[in-house]
Amino acid sequence: MTGRIQFWFEFASTYSYLSALRIEDAAARLGVAVDWQPFLLGPIFAAQGWDNSPFNLYPAKGRYMWRDMERLCAARGLPFLRPDPFPQNGLMAARLAIVARQHGQVAPFVRAVYEAQFGRGLGISDAGVLMDCWHAAGLPTSLMQAASTPETKAALRAQSDAARELDLFGAPSFIAGDELYWGDDRLDEALLQAAKI
Amino acid sequence: MTGRIQFWFEFASTYSYLSALRIEDAAARLGVAVDWQPFLLGPIFAAQGWDNSPFNLYPAKGRYMWRDMERLCAARGLPFLRPDPFPQNGLMAARLAIVARQHGQVAPFVRAVYEAQFGRGLGISDAGVLMDCWHAAGLPTSLMQAASTPETKAALRAQSDAARELDLFGAPSFIAGDELYWGDDRLDEALLQAAKI
Repeated sequence: MTGRIQFWFEFASTYSYLSALRIEDAAARLGVAVDWQPFLLGPIFAAQGWDNSPFNLYPAKGRYMWRDMERLCAARGLPFLRPDPFPQNGLMAARLAIVARQHGQVAPFVRAVYEAQFGRGLGISDAGVLMDCWHAAGLPTSLMQAASTPETKAALRAQSDAARELDLFGAPSFIAGDELYWGDDRLDEALLQAAKI
Repeated sequence: MTGRIQFWFEFASTYSYLSALRIEDAAARLGVAVDWQPFLLGPIFAAQGWDNSPFNLYPAKGRYMWRDMERLCAARGLPFLRPDPFPQNGLMAARLAIVARQHGQVAPFVRAVYEAQFGRGLGISDAGVLMDCWHAAGLPTSLMQAASTPETKAALRAQSDAARELDLFGAPSFIAGDELYWGDDRLDEALLQAAKI
């Protein structure tokens, strides 16, 4: 592999589900390696005056998003169920993703969390749901407690700080070289750019 | 032609430029007829508390949009220049589009306005710029004054009311049957849907 792409995802993000489920295969076809980058959008949204998902703050935009996701998932053969409440609190899932990354299992863990949340409508702040996802990624229960260490908490804060420095404003976002791409609609273009450099 | 698509555009919208320049050819290839629907986003944005373009209100989103447009226009061989100020006031252009539509020349007039604004960076509230666009669409100067009649003003207000009733929240938007699609990224999907019904 020569190219690399950074995949910045927030667990509560619906469109990140679409990218999480296809990025590894699509990247592999182009010989591009994927750097999975969990972060929290909450602080970025808060900095621009939003205390909730824009899909809740702007109801017409929200109604459209749910229908758009429904159509896209149907076209891709993906199950789609709306979790309640939306957005889900992805803090613990994001900390676990940090730990899973240290153990080389970030991709299967992240996919399992998205599938639970948007494929089966489950709550991803639920410890039992997260444990099932953890095990689905082949990770042992004993490693879960590392998600609550000061080091892991600091690592996730550093991710969110890095996201702001990269000028990210939504998810999914992709970085290929110096170029930023936003949204699952730009994944293919971002991968082509990553393959070129 | 069997299928029909409604193309809802706001002149100040950058991504509407992309759709305006390709929709007729893309629709014709699928045997779909295009209903050109000018409207104003200002009242819709105002209703959700925005007094400016979201690309100005949310600077990171704005910086991204300009770079995204630059890349997309380069890939499509379209000139791209940022008008100053942004957003432009598209009120008179939209009223003229109503009149051009009554005379069967809405498509070439709208394309001319977008090309002037985003291809050459010109101000589209400028009467001289609008007159050049009007003539480029083969319309006679004498018809321009119809843009300022009470009937035309009311017709544009009715368009914007209809947009709100259709739950539109941005531009470009497309309606195919009962389905709403938002953004130039969804134009191809919207056209396929329009061709099916």
